[in-house]
Amino acid sequence: MSKSKSCLVIGAGDDTGAEIGKAFAAEGFISCLVRRPRHADALENLAADIRVNGHQAHAFPADARDEDEMIALIEKIETEIAPIEIAVFNIGANVQFPITETTSRVYRKVWEMACFSGFLMGREVAKHMLKRGSGTIIFTGATASMRGKENLSAFAGAKHALRALAQSMARELGPKNIHVAHTLIDGAIDSNFIRENFANVDAMREEDAIINPAHIAQAYVMLHNQPRTAWTHELDLRPWKESW
Amino acid sequence: MSKSKSCLVIGAGDDTGAEIGKAFAAEGFISCLVRRPRHADALENLAADIRVNGHQAHAFPADARDEDEMIALIEKIETEIAPIEIAVFNIGANVQFPITETTSRVYRKVWEMACFSGFLMGREVAKHMLKRGSGTIIFTGATASMRGKENLSAFAGAKHALRALAQSMARELGPKNIHVAHTLIDGAIDSNFIRENFANVDAMREEDAIINPAHIAQAYVMLHNQPRTAWTHELDLRPWKESW
Amino acid sequence: MSKSKSCLVIGAGDDTGAEIGKAFAAEGFISCLVRRPRHADALENLAADIRVNGHQAHAFPADARDEDEMIALIEKIETEIAPIEIAVFNIGANVQFPITETTSRVYRKVWEMACFSGFLMGREVAKHMLKRGSGTIIFTGATASMRGKENLSAFAGAKHALRALAQSMARELGPKNIHVAHTLIDGAIDSNFIRENFANVDAMREEDAIINPAHIAQAYVMLHNQPRTAWTHELDLRPWKESW
Amino acid sequence: MSKSKSCLVIGAGDDTGAEIGKAFAAEGFISCLVRRPRHADALENLAADIRVNGHQAHAFPADARDEDEMIALIEKIETEIAPIEIAVFNIGANVQFPITETTSRVYRKVWEMACFSGFLMGREVAKHMLKRGSGTIIFTGATASMRGKENLSAFAGAKHALRALAQSMARELGPKNIHVAHTLIDGAIDSNFIRENFANVDAMREEDAIINPAHIAQAYVMLHNQPRTAWTHELDLRPWKESW
Repeated sequence: MSKSKSCLVIGAGDDTGAEIGKAFAAEGFISCLVRRPRHADALENLAADIRVNGHQAHAFPADARDEDEMIALIEKIETEIAPIEIAVFNIGANVQFPITETTSRVYRKVWEMACFSGFLMGREVAKHMLKRGSGTIIFTGATASMRGKENLSAFAGAKHALRALAQSMARELGPKNIHVAHTLIDGAIDSNFIRENFANVDAMREEDAIINPAHIAQAYVMLHNQPRTAWTHELDLRPWKESW
Repeated sequence: MSKSKSCLVIGAGDDTGAEIGKAFAAEGFISCLVRRPRHADALENLAADIRVNGHQAHAFPADARDEDEMIALIEKIETEIAPIEIAVFNIGANVQFPITETTSRVYRKVWEMACFSGFLMGREVAKHMLKRGSGTIIFTGATASMRGKENLSAFAGAKHALRALAQSMARELGPKNIHVAHTLIDGAIDSNFIRENFANVDAMREEDAIINPAHIAQAYVMLHNQPRTAWTHELDLRPWKESW
Repeated sequence: MSKSKSCLVIGAGDDTGAEIGKAFAAEGFISCLVRRPRHADALENLAADIRVNGHQAHAFPADARDEDEMIALIEKIETEIAPIEIAVFNIGANVQFPITETTSRVYRKVWEMACFSGFLMGREVAKHMLKRGSGTIIFTGATASMRGKENLSAFAGAKHALRALAQSMARELGPKNIHVAHTLIDGAIDSNFIRENFANVDAMREEDAIINPAHIAQAYVMLHNQPRTAWTHELDLRPWKESW
Repeated sequence: MSKSKSCLVIGAGDDTGAEIGKAFAAEGFISCLVRRPRHADALENLAADIRVNGHQAHAFPADARDEDEMIALIEKIETEIAPIEIAVFNIGANVQFPITETTSRVYRKVWEMACFSGFLMGREVAKHMLKRGSGTIIFTGATASMRGKENLSAFAGAKHALRALAQSMARELGPKNIHVAHTLIDGAIDSNFIRENFANVDAMREEDAIINPAHIAQAYVMLHNQPRTAWTHELDLRPWKESW
């Protein structure tokens, strides 16, 4: 049924993005995976992994902040691969600086990566989805989407703005049958970043105290599959042991 | 596997509560259904319906505001039927009065029905779940759980307090492996109340503009089945056409 | 000008409530101070202190949870003293218990003290204020008004419900020229309770790290004095050093 | 006392910004008013008006989005005029477009005006205030700071991000004795924009149904004057008749 539909994942990193790409491919969608060109090899490996499992995937190394590139890519997927039924925006940019040490370059770049790119994706896929009158768009949020904190001016700003985008689009596009959802990921994800920076990751994984990226992906598939009499627009995902 | 576990549903009315009872029974749990004694016949019919479908259910007409009755009932289910793995609190009390016309009797009763009963259920099932180190507790919330409004002093008060209970319990019991979640149901439910009070319910149902109670139940089953590295503590459920 | 108007303070304890009573008396209102009968002496001393300073005050020992008593008291003040232009609800009930150790007596009593009493006050003064088409009603909130936490089921429940009351009344009565506001007091107050339970209160006071109750009172006077083109319905009050 | 201190107002438009500049000048601060160069004449007139009333003011036409210009301006004020004790960021950018008609130019520009400029101001004044260990920074927010809505992707995004900036800075700089506050202006302001676009402004003003900009300014002065045992970090300002 969904053989001729694609799922766009922008921010198809090694962990959460990868699992989202795999999960929707396993559901029968053609996963179209986007990540920065300097990770082109990892991205191609991810697509290959998905294909080895008998599913469909394509790697599209690209800069998600580049409007022309994004417009062209989404047009290309729609025309040459399959209509985008699901689009997931999953780029993070978690940097921490005291306000006085936050350069304008950092402040702007974090916003461009974690928010402006999401706007570009959201707007472009919405154009196509509106023509068909259906689709699901999911934005990955974080605790910083809801609350500013010391050293988080840049990151919390971008994430708050992304949440505003998700909420505005949800209210605007919901009545046009496009399901827009925002997730609040609160807790360490079992990812490269965490594995490199935390000492006790194995112990935490052992007791389920860090988020398994595959479980995030499972929630995203669930959001897409929700019947439209009862859509969820925001949910949190947090390990059982997490203090919040 | 779950043959020897029960699911307690307090507020097993004709619509949402009934569907929740059916859904968990279909998952293999023994549904223990609670509703006010004056609806004892409807409750027994619901249990019978579930059994006709080859699943297990028991009707327990009771006043959820009565502490002794609730303690005894939960003890009885735990001892005579099966350990309560899931408990759902689903009593509403949506009344509207201007503040000056809100009697203390109404104000207190709404709180007793929609909040105090939830406290009694939550505390009593928590005692048993803590011994076993597992369980799921779900509280049904509404838009009024988040926002007061004219004529809603009583109802919004009870629903805010219930949300505070859910959040307090989630933070306290999560690290003890008990998953406590709160839902925000925002929109008309396809229920007796709506069918009797809205003119165009058939048209709304036709276009999925009112919430199908079975879809709420589906979300509750999903919450129970979430792996504990990524638990959701709050989500909204709202028809696609709903303005919010 | 305001010589013939009264200010009702329910919860006129030794610290915040006392300062609120003093502050409005200093503004020319007749402070009508309510506190539990077992603190009748302290209450009378507070009223006497205010009078010594040349202002007007009356002590009314009473149980704010008793509907008949509250109706009679408010009627008496309106009839025998002066119209109630300002009403402040300032009763707290900050207890902490694990959910399984929270008795129904505690749960109910905390709600009656910190919420139901506020409802009684709010409804009764609203009746009189609506006739005159003016008035200010202020409810004292806390961090627990916004967020549940471990061991706070009872207290957070009551405070959430009080906030729902304030918000419902604000939306309902604002367009009738009654200003209803809710405050979020976040931090230790320089009070008997803190002075008895914290070791370093003197050092904290020295560096302004605990809230001076007179500064809370100053904010309440400000709220009352706001011109109605720009009313505040909620504000936080928190020491500069407080982490939040 | 404050004769040798300045108040920076970025976004010193004809209405709210102008009143804030006047109000702090009346408090004895040297108002340093910033507005886009194409409104240089209006800005100079505002400064002249303030001086005619015996207070001090300077007009600085400038592009608040230009980092070098802002760094130089703030340095100049600090060096040549007086230390900046208060800084107010008051630039709005209320545009409305459906998501699919929101150009990247608009999306970026709204963010640059309503958020990035605020970051530049906040960071630069914080550097000076941190050296002195005191200061007040106020960011003007709106309903869209809290909630996204159809056609508001760009504006709500910028305002959410500005709120995240305010909250992050408040938490980071509060313990360093710098008071950072955010206001939620909810309702039509009696401004050029409203006077040109609403038919019934005179009637609304007559009954106080639109916000008097001088009352916003009064709240800002109050925020600056709060004693630090009880700082407010966020408050709403809304006409009594406003529905919310």
